[in-house]
Amino acid sequence: MKDYFVGVDLGGTNVEVCLLSDSGEVVGRGAAPTEVALGPVSLVDRVAAICQEMLASSSIGVSEVRAFCIGSPGPISVSEGKIIKAGNLPGFDNFRLRGELSARLGVPGLLENDANVACWGEFWRGAGRGTTDMVMFTLGTGIGGGMVVAGELVHGSEDNGAELGHMIIVPKGRKCSCGQCGCLEAYASASHTAKRAMEALQAGRSSVLEGVLQRSGTITSKDVFECAVAGDELANEVVDGTAAALAQACVSMRHITEPQTVVLAGGMINAGDMLTSRVKKFYNEMMWNLKSETMEICLAQLGADAGVIGAAGLALHHYQNDRLGAVGE
Amino acid sequence: MKDYFVGVDLGGTNVEVCLLSDSGEVVGRGAAPTEVALGPVSLVDRVAAICQEMLASSSIGVSEVRAFCIGSPGPISVSEGKIIKAGNLPGFDNFRLRGELSARLGVPGLLENDANVACWGEFWRGAGRGTTDMVMFTLGTGIGGGMVVAGELVHGSEDNGAELGHMIIVPKGRKCSCGQCGCLEAYASASHTAKRAMEALQAGRSSVLEGVLQRSGTITSKDVFECAVAGDELANEVVDGTAAALAQACVSMRHITEPQTVVLAGGMINAGDMLTSRVKKFYNEMMWNLKSETMEICLAQLGADAGVIGAAGLALHHYQNDRLGAVGE
Repeated sequence: MKDYFVGVDLGGTNVEVCLLSDSGEVVGRGAAPTEVALGPVSLVDRVAAICQEMLASSSIGVSEVRAFCIGSPGPISVSEGKIIKAGNLPGFDNFRLRGELSARLGVPGLLENDANVACWGEFWRGAGRGTTDMVMFTLGTGIGGGMVVAGELVHGSEDNGAELGHMIIVPKGRKCSCGQCGCLEAYASASHTAKRAMEALQAGRSSVLEGVLQRSGTITSKDVFECAVAGDELANEVVDGTAAALAQACVSMRHITEPQTVVLAGGMINAGDMLTSRVKKFYNEMMWNLKSETMEICLAQLGADAGVIGAAGLALHHYQNDRLGAVGE
Repeated sequence: MKDYFVGVDLGGTNVEVCLLSDSGEVVGRGAAPTEVALGPVSLVDRVAAICQEMLASSSIGVSEVRAFCIGSPGPISVSEGKIIKAGNLPGFDNFRLRGELSARLGVPGLLENDANVACWGEFWRGAGRGTTDMVMFTLGTGIGGGMVVAGELVHGSEDNGAELGHMIIVPKGRKCSCGQCGCLEAYASASHTAKRAMEALQAGRSSVLEGVLQRSGTITSKDVFECAVAGDELANEVVDGTAAALAQACVSMRHITEPQTVVLAGGMINAGDMLTSRVKKFYNEMMWNLKSETMEICLAQLGADAGVIGAAGLALHHYQNDRLGAVGE
């Protein structure tokens, strides 16, 4: 009899589930629409049904499943296993998702923040494999974060740690949607990268981005990166601004938790090597040279799978370290 | 028979030693000159002699001592228990201090960075008592740091973590002695607080600090704080600059590891409430208000004792968590 673990990645649109063996092999996958309107109990039903299908199709007995982990939008309470309030999961507020799924599956489990399970996925099986200390920046509309310190996820005292997009990198700097000024997110997120380009056009700078704006009515970070590749001067300045902001945050994080690796994730990493090479260039210019150790700055490797694989891996990790509670808790 | 623990705080001038009971009571104290020129083996002799005296005078048997911890200037290797290179301990480079003292005392031990043991002292018995997550800024000539995350010290992947003075808070900002630009230390350390006042005078600003400079040939951060209390406009601007830089770092750290408490330590905290009240004011202005949780910003409570008490407390902590190696390792 082997040990198996269930990973669940809960999003506002779909819920992804996987089954992992204790050797780290993904032996089953499944998914279903989240159907938020049907409420959380219905979701638990659907996840349990997917688990049964996965077990049946891989001839694994239910008694071989040891634990599960759900990655959920938040804020959540890790200790209580409940969603506190998730913007795109109305009706799930204060629902004790961990306990309900645990009672249904008959095994103990844990509830984690979705950014944290994705970070754990990259740490365990992706770009951070082999490290003990890792930092992840997820570059989307906003900037999310994740941190592993000495082989463990950082939660913070109220489960709101690793909000790395809201480090202040410029005193009295650009206004962020969070209300602060000068946040990393207000410079280097996909939306603020596009916004800085728009502001430069409005200030009268000329660029091929003007044509993009006229044709499509808006500018995206993808447009900015494409025009930068094509040699547009303004687009290159904007990309450099994004990369320099990320590099500054990388220097600070290197001094704070001293990760071996910083992983860049999220939609904006479609820009690929153009992004990482510039972040590295600015990092090397900004970072002290008192020590010879280097830090890796690289792209995430698991894409959208990081969450579901990280969740299953985290269930395995907690099982191995004897940190799970009782069934139904 | 009770359990006792030895704490050692190794400085370039003196070495302080204390004996701690398992209930956390300090039952013995001792000190000796470090006498760096006599080399590390001689130092081990002296520390062992102090331990014997402490045990004898408190009628505690050597068999009741369970572990020790030495706080040392660094960089050090925690895993190997050796000093790598300490500026004010020439001749101690690569000396396996942990193993030598362990063999002499006949109990296992650990070697820690001096900033970390002081941080642990404040966490365990001082201003951070009762928290799980704490950050400490030590404001002296430079700015040192310490971090406790989920009840454990943060070391970083190469034991150089928590170098909080070298977070970059201003892009292309003031030059720091480390070689970087815009470090927290280059704004808020005692030396840079004095330096910013000097620069303002040189730029032609008028202030009662001119008189101080003429009388004593220099300006210290103490002078700046005193003149600020007396109402001098420039001195108040400089103090505000120091407080705003610290507040910005506090906001970032709150988002990164989400401590319940930030502790300010080091010589500059003689400025007292003037410093903390301004840091808090700027922190409240800069910090988002998305969540209702608050963070404490306060002064260290143990003064120069933080190191030796923290070292002994850390020995106790590692003993209780069964994390010590073998004798002589």
